[in-house]
Amino acid sequence: MSSPSRSLIHYGYASTSDMTWSRSEKAVARQAFDAALKRELHQLMQEAKEISGQINQPSDLWDLQEYLTQRRKEIDRKYDYRYSHLTQVFGRLLHETRVSEDELRGFSEDKLKTIRSFAKFLAEDAA
Amino acid sequence: MSSPSRSLIHYGYASTSDMTWSRSEKAVARQAFDAALKRELHQLMQEAKEISGQINQPSDLWDLQEYLTQRRKEIDRKYDYRYSHLTQVFGRLLHETRVSEDELRGFSEDKLKTIRSFAKFLAEDAA
Repeated sequence: MSSPSRSLIHYGYASTSDMTWSRSEKAVARQAFDAALKRELHQLMQEAKEISGQINQPSDLWDLQEYLTQRRKEIDRKYDYRYSHLTQVFGRLLHETRVSEDELRGFSEDKLKTIRSFAKFLAEDAA
Repeated sequence: MSSPSRSLIHYGYASTSDMTWSRSEKAVARQAFDAALKRELHQLMQEAKEISGQINQPSDLWDLQEYLTQRRKEIDRKYDYRYSHLTQVFGRLLHETRVSEDELRGFSEDKLKTIRSFAKFLAEDAA
């Protein structure tokens, strides 16, 4: 996969680190971020229970161990609450339908535009 | 924990790498080794199911992930089927009651002595 940041800059989007976050935007961000993380973790908890229930041989056990290790790394990387990274974080969560546009209501138009652009970029990159 | 090999040599036991394994001893070793590994893996499969069933919050999920990762490393290290390592391997399995003396019947007396000595050493080391 190509590097998203470099490609977006190439396509003419401003660096997200230039953005400032108002107090109310920070509150919206925190709530949407926490809700998405909570949903993803609860989904993974259910998955782990289902996968464990189907363990029949030792290789299934190591498949579960590898899956949980890989998901943990992925979740740690994805949920990066630094303001300089938040538009990309929400762009990814929007792309993965882990947050809705409704939950991002209260963000400035330029932030929403950047978030939507990144979600669109990821959709095209995955196609 | 101190290094078992160094301490055993210090106590006057010969290096286990000097031992040769007859064809029939190899057959006994392979069977006892495989049986112990199978039992340990089946026990871990049951444990994983039980732990997963009790997952109630995200930290439980990561506890399971860490537990499986740690157990996998431990099992990989423990079940080392090199003839130069086998008396220590069986000494540990005997100490952990994962093999019985009955399963080792067919080994030469010097091997059994070394295996029992190592099991005893581990018991004393753990005390």
